[in-house]
Amino acid sequence: MVSYAYVGISTGRKTEVTELRQRFAVICLRGRVREYGIKVGGMETGEQNSIADVRGVSVGHVTLIQGEGKLVPGRGPVRTGVTVILPHEGSLFNEKLRAGVHVQNGAGELTGTLQVMEWGVLETPIALTNSLNVGLVHDAVVEYMLQKEPDIGIEADVVLPVVGECDDSYLNDIRGRHVKREHVLEAAGTASEKVVEGSVGGGTGMSAMGFKAGIGTASRKTGKEFGHHTVGVLVNANFSGELRVNGIPVGRRLQTKSVIRRESRSIITVIATDAPLTSLQLRRVGAHVPLALGRVGSTSASSSGDISIAFSTAERLDRSFAQISGKTEAVNSETIDELFRATVEATEEAVLNSVFTSETMKGRDDHVSPSLPVEEALEIMKTSGGL
Amino acid sequence: MVSYAYVGISTGRKTEVTELRQRFAVICLRGRVREYGIKVGGMETGEQNSIADVRGVSVGHVTLIQGEGKLVPGRGPVRTGVTVILPHEGSLFNEKLRAGVHVQNGAGELTGTLQVMEWGVLETPIALTNSLNVGLVHDAVVEYMLQKEPDIGIEADVVLPVVGECDDSYLNDIRGRHVKREHVLEAAGTASEKVVEGSVGGGTGMSAMGFKAGIGTASRKTGKEFGHHTVGVLVNANFSGELRVNGIPVGRRLQTKSVIRRESRSIITVIATDAPLTSLQLRRVGAHVPLALGRVGSTSASSSGDISIAFSTAERLDRSFAQISGKTEAVNSETIDELFRATVEATEEAVLNSVFTSETMKGRDDHVSPSLPVEEALEIMKTSGGL
Amino acid sequence: MVSYAYVGISTGRKTEVTELRQRFAVICLRGRVREYGIKVGGMETGEQNSIADVRGVSVGHVTLIQGEGKLVPGRGPVRTGVTVILPHEGSLFNEKLRAGVHVQNGAGELTGTLQVMEWGVLETPIALTNSLNVGLVHDAVVEYMLQKEPDIGIEADVVLPVVGECDDSYLNDIRGRHVKREHVLEAAGTASEKVVEGSVGGGTGMSAMGFKAGIGTASRKTGKEFGHHTVGVLVNANFSGELRVNGIPVGRRLQTKSVIRRESRSIITVIATDAPLTSLQLRRVGAHVPLALGRVGSTSASSSGDISIAFSTAERLDRSFAQISGKTEAVNSETIDELFRATVEATEEAVLNSVFTSETMKGRDDHVSPSLPVEEALEIMKTSGGL
Amino acid sequence: MVSYAYVGISTGRKTEVTELRQRFAVICLRGRVREYGIKVGGMETGEQNSIADVRGVSVGHVTLIQGEGKLVPGRGPVRTGVTVILPHEGSLFNEKLRAGVHVQNGAGELTGTLQVMEWGVLETPIALTNSLNVGLVHDAVVEYMLQKEPDIGIEADVVLPVVGECDDSYLNDIRGRHVKREHVLEAAGTASEKVVEGSVGGGTGMSAMGFKAGIGTASRKTGKEFGHHTVGVLVNANFSGELRVNGIPVGRRLQTKSVIRRESRSIITVIATDAPLTSLQLRRVGAHVPLALGRVGSTSASSSGDISIAFSTAERLDRSFAQISGKTEAVNSETIDELFRATVEATEEAVLNSVFTSETMKGRDDHVSPSLPVEEALEIMKTSGGL
Repeated sequence: MVSYAYVGISTGRKTEVTELRQRFAVICLRGRVREYGIKVGGMETGEQNSIADVRGVSVGHVTLIQGEGKLVPGRGPVRTGVTVILPHEGSLFNEKLRAGVHVQNGAGELTGTLQVMEWGVLETPIALTNSLNVGLVHDAVVEYMLQKEPDIGIEADVVLPVVGECDDSYLNDIRGRHVKREHVLEAAGTASEKVVEGSVGGGTGMSAMGFKAGIGTASRKTGKEFGHHTVGVLVNANFSGELRVNGIPVGRRLQTKSVIRRESRSIITVIATDAPLTSLQLRRVGAHVPLALGRVGSTSASSSGDISIAFSTAERLDRSFAQISGKTEAVNSETIDELFRATVEATEEAVLNSVFTSETMKGRDDHVSPSLPVEEALEIMKTSGGL
Repeated sequence: MVSYAYVGISTGRKTEVTELRQRFAVICLRGRVREYGIKVGGMETGEQNSIADVRGVSVGHVTLIQGEGKLVPGRGPVRTGVTVILPHEGSLFNEKLRAGVHVQNGAGELTGTLQVMEWGVLETPIALTNSLNVGLVHDAVVEYMLQKEPDIGIEADVVLPVVGECDDSYLNDIRGRHVKREHVLEAAGTASEKVVEGSVGGGTGMSAMGFKAGIGTASRKTGKEFGHHTVGVLVNANFSGELRVNGIPVGRRLQTKSVIRRESRSIITVIATDAPLTSLQLRRVGAHVPLALGRVGSTSASSSGDISIAFSTAERLDRSFAQISGKTEAVNSETIDELFRATVEATEEAVLNSVFTSETMKGRDDHVSPSLPVEEALEIMKTSGGL
Repeated sequence: MVSYAYVGISTGRKTEVTELRQRFAVICLRGRVREYGIKVGGMETGEQNSIADVRGVSVGHVTLIQGEGKLVPGRGPVRTGVTVILPHEGSLFNEKLRAGVHVQNGAGELTGTLQVMEWGVLETPIALTNSLNVGLVHDAVVEYMLQKEPDIGIEADVVLPVVGECDDSYLNDIRGRHVKREHVLEAAGTASEKVVEGSVGGGTGMSAMGFKAGIGTASRKTGKEFGHHTVGVLVNANFSGELRVNGIPVGRRLQTKSVIRRESRSIITVIATDAPLTSLQLRRVGAHVPLALGRVGSTSASSSGDISIAFSTAERLDRSFAQISGKTEAVNSETIDELFRATVEATEEAVLNSVFTSETMKGRDDHVSPSLPVEEALEIMKTSGGL
Repeated sequence: MVSYAYVGISTGRKTEVTELRQRFAVICLRGRVREYGIKVGGMETGEQNSIADVRGVSVGHVTLIQGEGKLVPGRGPVRTGVTVILPHEGSLFNEKLRAGVHVQNGAGELTGTLQVMEWGVLETPIALTNSLNVGLVHDAVVEYMLQKEPDIGIEADVVLPVVGECDDSYLNDIRGRHVKREHVLEAAGTASEKVVEGSVGGGTGMSAMGFKAGIGTASRKTGKEFGHHTVGVLVNANFSGELRVNGIPVGRRLQTKSVIRRESRSIITVIATDAPLTSLQLRRVGAHVPLALGRVGSTSASSSGDISIAFSTAERLDRSFAQISGKTEAVNSETIDELFRATVEATEEAVLNSVFTSETMKGRDDHVSPSLPVEEALEIMKTSGGL
C-alpha cells in the first residue's frame, strides 16, 4: 500500500505536508521571469499574469512526491500529480463553453478532442497528468461530473472528459499510476484563482529543454480599441529543444550543461479568453501556440504531443447547445490579430515561467532534472542586451 | 459451438449467470444476413465473412449482464461489456502496424486517435466499451501493455491505448462503470478468430435504428488482379436512422414499430486489411465508412460519434518505426478503388449482421430494445425484389 | 418559360446555336423526380425545391455546345460550360457570409477552400466548370470581383475565388479550355432564382453512375419547432457508382445497360441555408453529403473529388469581419439534426434530379453519355414498392 | 538607388531587358546571411545551401518590373512575377512524387492542395505568383502540362496544378494580372539549379516584417547515421512580424524604422527532400515550418496564408500510382527528428536570405519597401553576441 507525501494548495494535514509545504515555499521563491526583469513581448499582462485573469477560471493541483532512489515499479519513487483547470465556477455540463483544439504534433493524448472539435464546445474540466495515468484520471473526472450531475447517463447524455498528458517517466514511477480518483477530486475541489507554478500537479515530474519545468502561466490584455479582452495561458511543459529567452539563445550559451540523460517531450497548452470567439476562432488561437514554442526553442520532436485547447468564457450554452447567457460575436480581424499576438506572448512567457520557477528535482533511480541556473541565464541576457 | 468468455460481473450468482447464458444462447441462433439469403454488394467474402479473415486478427468479448428492473446507479441492471480487437498475435508495442483514423462525426471518443493520426501507426489493441467506462478500460489496456512489456515507461516510451465508446445508457447502468480491469484482460486473453456478433462485449447494450444491435462483422476479398487482399470490418453499432437492407427501406415499411423511446447514437468501425497500405491510404479507407452508413439508414446525428480506425497487417515496424517485416507498397489506384468498395460493402453487411443477430434485450428501468422482426423484414425484402 | 444563356464558342454560327437551343429545350421536358412521383425522404421541400429557395441565392449557367465528331484538341467538339452561384444579391466582398467546406475525397479542386476553412467566410461567388478550365474561370471571377469593387488590391485586400471542377473529358474537348472570361461574366450577370438543371453550365458534359447527369438541385424546410429554416442544395454530379433511387437498386436491375466506356468521377455540392449557423456547423452540414452519396450509389472512387461547400445567409460580415446585419446564433442540437437530415435528403434528390433531367448527349469522338431510361427505372420502382 | 532585374512584359525592349539583367547581378551582391557570418542552427548545409541541393530540383523565375509612379490599374507600375519549382527533371505527370501540405493559417491559396492531401502525391510543377494572378498562372501550368503530355484529358486523366500566392499589392499593380502564360512557360523552361533569391519571380513585389523580401532558400543535410539526407527549402516571404535574426530581436532594436505603411502577409514554403518519406511524414515536415516562422518573428496574422508543401524525390509513381523507381521506406523516428530539425533550420535561414538579399524597391504610387539595413543589423548581432 503506497501512501503519498501530499502537497495541496489548500488547507492540508500532518507534519509531512507542512514539511513539504516548506519545500514548496522554496519553489515559489524562485521568481517568475518578470520578477527578473524579463519582459516578453509588448502587450500588457492581466492582473496576476495568469490564466485565472480570465474571470471564472480556477486551477487546482495535487502534487505527489514520495520516496527516493531505485525504481520499484508500482511503489515509487513518485514524482507526479494532477492539475485541474475549471473553466468557470458553475456546472460545465449545464453551462458549456465554446472551445477549439489544435494539434501541432499529435504524439500525445488529449481525450475529448474529437468532441471538442466536432461540437466546438467544452463541457468538462481539463485535467493534466502523466501519460499512463490518463485512464484513471479520465475515470475520476467522470466521477466528478457524475457527482455534480445526477442525471448524466440516465435522462441526460453521457460525458467525455478532457484529459491531457505528458511523460514524466524520467523522474517518476510512471508505471505505478499513482494519481488516484481522490487526487483528481481534491485538485478540482481546491481549485483557486491563485495559480501555483513549477513542479506542481501534472507538472511535478516534467522537464523542458534540459531543465526542470512543469506548470507555467501568463496572460495578456488587448487594448481598449481591441475590446479589452484577456487571454490567459497555462502550459504543462515537457518538451525538448534549446532554451531561448526572449530570443536570446540562453541554452546554447550556458556553461552549466544539463545533466538530463533522456529528452522529455510534449507540451499541453490551455488557453482561456473572455473574448466572444467562435469555436473556429478558438482553434485558430490554439494554432498560434507553435509560433511561441519555436521562439522558446522547440523543434517539436516526432514523439512530442504538442496540443493546445482554447476556450472562451463569453457565452454559455445549455445541454442542447442553446444559448443561456453571454454571446458569441463577430470579432473583427484586427482584434483577432491582437488575440493571436496575446496568445504567442503569453505562451512564450508561460513556458519561461514554468522553467524559471521549477527547482531541481531528483527522482527515480536518482535521475536528476536540474533547475535552470537563473543567475547565469540572467548574465547571458544582460550581455546580449536582453535585459 | 460458441462459448462466451464471461457473463455476470462477479463470479457469484451462478444461477442468474447460467440463466442469462441460456438466454444468450438464443441470440446465437439468430442468423447473419447471408443465412437469410441477403447478399450485400458484389464482392466475394472472406472465409468467415469476419474481421478475422485478415490473418492474425482476433477478437475477444466480455459480456456483463446482471440484474433487472429499476436502475440503482452503481448497482445495475448491468447490460454492458468490452470488446478487444488484437490486430496481430504478437507484441504490438514491438511490432507496430500502420493505421489511420477517420472521423465522420466526432461526438464520441476514440482515445489514441491523435497519435494514430500523427504517426500513422497502431501500437495497442483496440478496445470498445460504454462511454463512461473509457477511463477504466484505458487504464486496463495500459495494464495489459505493461504486463507484456516490462520496460514501458522505464527505458522505453509510454503507451497511449485506443479505446472507443458508444452510449449504452438506455439499457445499462452506465454510471456504474461496471467494466473493470479484469474484464479487459480477460477479453484480450480470450480473443479468438471466431468472432461472436450481436449483444456481446462492447455491443451488449447497444441499439441501432430502433432495434437491438451491437457487434457485427463482415469481410471482402479483392480479386486476383487486385492483389487478393482481404478487408475485414467490425462495428459496434448504436446509431439512429431508418433501416435500409440492401437499399430497401425496410425500417419505413415495417408494421412492427420499435418501442425504443430514446435514440441511441454512435458507431465505431474497425477495419483490418492485409493490403500493404500507407497510413494515409488507411485513413482514406476509413473515410468510406460514411457511404455505407448512409446506405443502411444513418443520417449521422449531431451527438453521434461516427469514428473509423483502419490498420494494415502488411508491414510491422519496431519501436523506432524502423521496418521489421513485411512492406508498405505503392498500391495502384484500381486496387485502392476495390479496397474502398470492399470497405463499403463489408461495413454495410457488418451493420446488418449486428442488427440481425441481436436478440431483444430488456434493461434498466425495464427499457426494452426490441430485436428486428426478421420474418417481417424478409417479407418486405421479397416483395421489393430484394431477395 | 425557361430561357438559357446559351453561348456558342464563336459569336457567329447563329443557325447552329438556334438549332442547339431547340435541342436544349427538349432537355427541359424531362421531369424532375417528384414529377414522376418519387418522393425522397420525409421533409417538406421549399417552394421551388431548389437552392434558390434560400432567399437571395441565384444561379446562372453558360452552356457551350458546339461541333461534333472527331476530337481536335483546342477546337472541339465542345460540351462544357460554367455555372455561377451568387450567395446573395449584394456585394459579397463587402457583405461576407459564413461558410464551411468538407472534403470527402479530395481528388478534385475547389479553389478558395483553405481560406473558407480558415476564416469560415465566403466572399466570392462559387463557380463550377471543367477541370482544365479552373484557371481561366478563376481569373474571370477575379475580373468579376474587380469590376464590382474598385479598391480590391489597392486600398482593400485581394480576393481568392471559389471555383470547383469536374472532369467532362469523356464528352468535351477539355484541353481546349473553351470557357472564357465573358462566359463567366455572363453566367454571373444572368443568374436568377429559376435554377435550370441537367446538361447546363458546369454540368454540360458530366455523367454519373453510367448516365448523363450534370446540375441538379433540391431543397428542404425544417418544421416550425426547428426554426422554419431552408436548406438548398445544388450539385454538379459526375461520379461513378450504381444508381439507387430512394434505396431501390435501379442501376443494378436495369436491362438497358449504359454504353459509357469510361467512368467519370467527382461531385461538387453547394449547400445554402438561412439557418444562423457558425462556420464550424456549416462544415458539419457539408460532412453529411457523403451519407447521401452512399444512398444514391457512390463508393467515392480514389480519383473522385467529392467536395462540399455550405454557406449561411443569416449573417453578413463586413471586410474586417465585423457584423453588418443578421446574426449567428446558438442553434440547438435538435435543429442541427434536422438541418443534417435536410442536407442528406436534398442532396440525394439533387443528384437524382441531375440524372433524371439530363438528355442523352453525344460528344467528342462520338462518345455517348445516355440518359437514364426513365420509364424502365420507374417500372423497377413500382415493382419494388418504391412508388 | 534601386536596381532591378527586369523582364519586359512584351517581348520587345530587348536592350532594356539585357541592361536590367546585368543590373540584376547587383542584387546578387547583397549577401546571404552566411556571407555575413550568421550561421543558423547547428546542422550542415547542402553544397549550395539551396532547395536545388536536392538532386533534380530546379527553379525558374520570370521577374516583371515596369513603369513607376502613380498606379493606373491594368497598366502598372508592375512589380511582380512568377517562380516555378520543378521537383524533378522528368515528366511529373508520368513520374509522380510523394508530397504533403500543411496549413498553419489558410488565408491564402495553394491550388491543388486538396488533391495533394488526398493522394499524397505531386504531379505538377509548383508555381508562386501574386494573389490575383493565380487563375492565369494556373491556366499556364495546365498549358505547360498539356504541351508535355498529349493524352491528358483525352485518354489520360486531367491535371490540377499547384499554384501558391502572396499579395504584392503594396508595390504592384496587382489588379493588372501582368503574369501571362508566356512568363510561366519561360520560368519553367529556364529553371535551373542555380536558385536566384530576393526580389525575383513570384517574390518580386513581396515584403516581410517591414523590409523588402521575396524568394529565399537554404538547405540542410542529416548526418551519416541519419541517412545523409538533404532537406531544401524555398520560401516566398511576405509576412508581418518583427525580425529576429538567430534569436536576436534585430527588428525591435533597429534605429532605422521601416517606412512600409501597410503590412504584408503570407508565406509559401516549399520543402524538397531526398529522404524516402511517406506522404503523412511529408505533411509532418511541413508542419514544422511554423516553428521557424515564430523564430524569425512572425505571429501569423489572421489574413496570412502560411502554407507549406513538402515533397520527396525518393520514389516515383506512375499514373496509376504504381511504383516506377526508388522506394518509400520506414524511416526511423530519430531520422524524422533530424529531418524536422533540418526543416526548421533551413526555413529560418531561407526567410533570412530572402530579407538579406532583397534590395529596396519603389513601386506603385511611390510606395517604398526598404531593404534591411544590413550593417546596422550586423552591429546589433555583434553587440548581442550573435556573431
